[in-house]
Amino acid sequence: MAAGEASKTLRVGLLGFGTVGSSFAEVLDAHRERLEDAGSAVVITRVFNRGVERKKAHPKASFVPASAQWTENVDEVLTADDVDVVVELMGGLDPIEGWLRTALEAGKHVVSANKQLIAYRGAAMFELAAKQGVQLLYNAAVAGGVPVIPGMAQGLSGDIIHRISGIVNGTCNFILSSMESGAEYATVLKEAQRLGYAEANPSADVDGFDARAKLCVLARIALRAEINPDDVPAQTIARVDAIDFAYAKELGCTVRQVARAELDGDTVRAAVGPALVPKSSPIAWSHGTQNMVVTSGRFGGDVVFSGHGAGGHPTAVAVLSDVIAVAKGSSKVRMPARKLKVSGDVTAPFYLRFVVKDKPGIVAAIAGALAKEDINIDAILQHHGHASERLPFVVTTEPCLSSTLERAVTEMTKLDFMHDPPVVMRILVVDDPDNI
Amino acid sequence: MAAGEASKTLRVGLLGFGTVGSSFAEVLDAHRERLEDAGSAVVITRVFNRGVERKKAHPKASFVPASAQWTENVDEVLTADDVDVVVELMGGLDPIEGWLRTALEAGKHVVSANKQLIAYRGAAMFELAAKQGVQLLYNAAVAGGVPVIPGMAQGLSGDIIHRISGIVNGTCNFILSSMESGAEYATVLKEAQRLGYAEANPSADVDGFDARAKLCVLARIALRAEINPDDVPAQTIARVDAIDFAYAKELGCTVRQVARAELDGDTVRAAVGPALVPKSSPIAWSHGTQNMVVTSGRFGGDVVFSGHGAGGHPTAVAVLSDVIAVAKGSSKVRMPARKLKVSGDVTAPFYLRFVVKDKPGIVAAIAGALAKEDINIDAILQHHGHASERLPFVVTTEPCLSSTLERAVTEMTKLDFMHDPPVVMRILVVDDPDNI
Repeated sequence: MAAGEASKTLRVGLLGFGTVGSSFAEVLDAHRERLEDAGSAVVITRVFNRGVERKKAHPKASFVPASAQWTENVDEVLTADDVDVVVELMGGLDPIEGWLRTALEAGKHVVSANKQLIAYRGAAMFELAAKQGVQLLYNAAVAGGVPVIPGMAQGLSGDIIHRISGIVNGTCNFILSSMESGAEYATVLKEAQRLGYAEANPSADVDGFDARAKLCVLARIALRAEINPDDVPAQTIARVDAIDFAYAKELGCTVRQVARAELDGDTVRAAVGPALVPKSSPIAWSHGTQNMVVTSGRFGGDVVFSGHGAGGHPTAVAVLSDVIAVAKGSSKVRMPARKLKVSGDVTAPFYLRFVVKDKPGIVAAIAGALAKEDINIDAILQHHGHASERLPFVVTTEPCLSSTLERAVTEMTKLDFMHDPPVVMRILVVDDPDNI
Repeated sequence: MAAGEASKTLRVGLLGFGTVGSSFAEVLDAHRERLEDAGSAVVITRVFNRGVERKKAHPKASFVPASAQWTENVDEVLTADDVDVVVELMGGLDPIEGWLRTALEAGKHVVSANKQLIAYRGAAMFELAAKQGVQLLYNAAVAGGVPVIPGMAQGLSGDIIHRISGIVNGTCNFILSSMESGAEYATVLKEAQRLGYAEANPSADVDGFDARAKLCVLARIALRAEINPDDVPAQTIARVDAIDFAYAKELGCTVRQVARAELDGDTVRAAVGPALVPKSSPIAWSHGTQNMVVTSGRFGGDVVFSGHGAGGHPTAVAVLSDVIAVAKGSSKVRMPARKLKVSGDVTAPFYLRFVVKDKPGIVAAIAGALAKEDINIDAILQHHGHASERLPFVVTTEPCLSSTLERAVTEMTKLDFMHDPPVVMRILVVDDPDNI
């Protein structure tokens, strides 16, 4: 512990007094006595936010000590003498990256909930922190209140993890688990927006950009791999239809937005998108805004972490746990990560759902396009009662390379009876059946 | 890091070269390169076991460096100059407690998978370790490869956990999840013994003694409560019958051996035994020998940890993770625990299953015994097709105090139509429905 050594109290400079920031003040206040008993007092000394006067009227502002200084000038936090750790709860790359560099250079520890920062700038930031002899912790960056990062860093350092899969976007999980009960995508999205789970522009969530940044944060610890989020293919959940849940059910599955990264030599095979998940997989257990991460290790097999992925209180728990770790100087397990390239190409069975104008020869044409690429069909499913003008039906394949399948799909899309391009989803396979 | 400071390599003295000990050597060997790369080499320098010559012929003995010294004299490990950390994988209180005291007094760190030691002697051992300025880590003592202890200690230190529940005995979970498919207890127990999941004398597992020691280990970290395992009531699973699964299913539940401890002021309400678990609860997800722990926190809500609870490799992962934490000096988050008293008394809805010789007035007599204690009946269930000589039927109650129910059950047991004392099981209630 470089910065806080002299004082027995760890002094926090807080950047951002929104939902998480104000909850952090509240949760810290509830811990005051037990932290003092444990000889590791933590106190907020400075708070940065725009519109300080408005923020001071926030119902949770009373949890900030009266002695704390509120400021609209961030430099008064980043380099303040009475700040040992800067807690950043604002998000985004710019201007945060520069601010946190200033803090690290001033010898402050940094605790951040910023997935973008860690995913895109992690390597440089960790290097700077190491050079300065300070901590840079970020448990809250993925899966909010689920302690998957410390659980892996501290509890699975003795395993060699080759794969990480999970549900790390609560908005998509809310939408898809609601659709499981029969609702349509557009209806559920509106409901999610009304409840504040989804943004007015939901693209970051539903198109997978949020999940892939989190996947890269997890890959650093689980796979010790540094990968660029922009290289990870992200497929939208917006084309998933109620009919897909009906077909998935027939296959013993449901549909979830799955983020998955797997080591393959010097390559990380990674992708984010809707997938068919067998009901027997823990990934199918999650519902609502819940998050869940499954690590697969060579020796320990599959380990599941799950809980509340977001929200002020759960995220504040993760942030405070980091701050306590800084106070105790207890988070030094940091394994080097290698810079690896990403491939979106995976070998898996796939689900293809078509909407066609019915006429003779459709199955023959589709089967032909697959056969041309040496892809075997596993099953053809078709429910009764649909208009032959817009007939939905499903083909599942035996395991094949996704890039090979893509070529076949491109061919099929040109067929004159095809209303829309097929919806293509990977089918997850449970391969640790002894466990889960 | 007191002991290993001078050498850059952490030197391990291993006590016990059985399933876990030999797997530890194997897993450590697989990590050699990555540990050296991270500047934290770990090497086995001494191995204690009886029958050393036989052990040296073990297929995994090749994972122990040729330079290591094998001995049948434990003192040659406990106080050896070339040992920084003693790794104890033998179990039991005597003589282990004395041995590990000797090691701590000699300034060695200790990593142990010994649930009895931590549950019964934890307080004194931690005090000694603190006095000596060394680490005493025990992640492997509960739930083998599931990193629930480091996950809580490091990742949930920012929450205030009021309850911990879970499935921490893989043998019972194997038996009960197999019975879910219709098998009888005695048949499944024999199968578990054949597979090596259950001992010839299965009492420690099926009667709940193993689970309650683990529950006390978890309570120390989760609830910061020091409780005596012998004070925790343990109910056997041996009286659970196939018919209970049928009735449980009708109630939307299954049956699992649940260990549960909850803070109530200065008391810990704790018990281990078979319980009805709603299918919507994560505790119902576990099957086979899987372990699962659910923590309930004031701010973070419910968090689930699950995975392989036992076995050489998963347990070795937990042990090696501890050893790596010692090497990095990174496990200093230790919160003080208070000595608290235990009450087995809980308020909950209950399931009572009777086997009676059918005659008029049975329901009235049972209802009368419950009414006398002011206990309300929630439902009465009776399946068709049973002989009236041995008629099984079920009564569920509204929430009541378990000690009150016990009085009513004592009265009922005296009734002349009652074949056996009723089987009484708590019905768990899912109270974080937003989450899981």
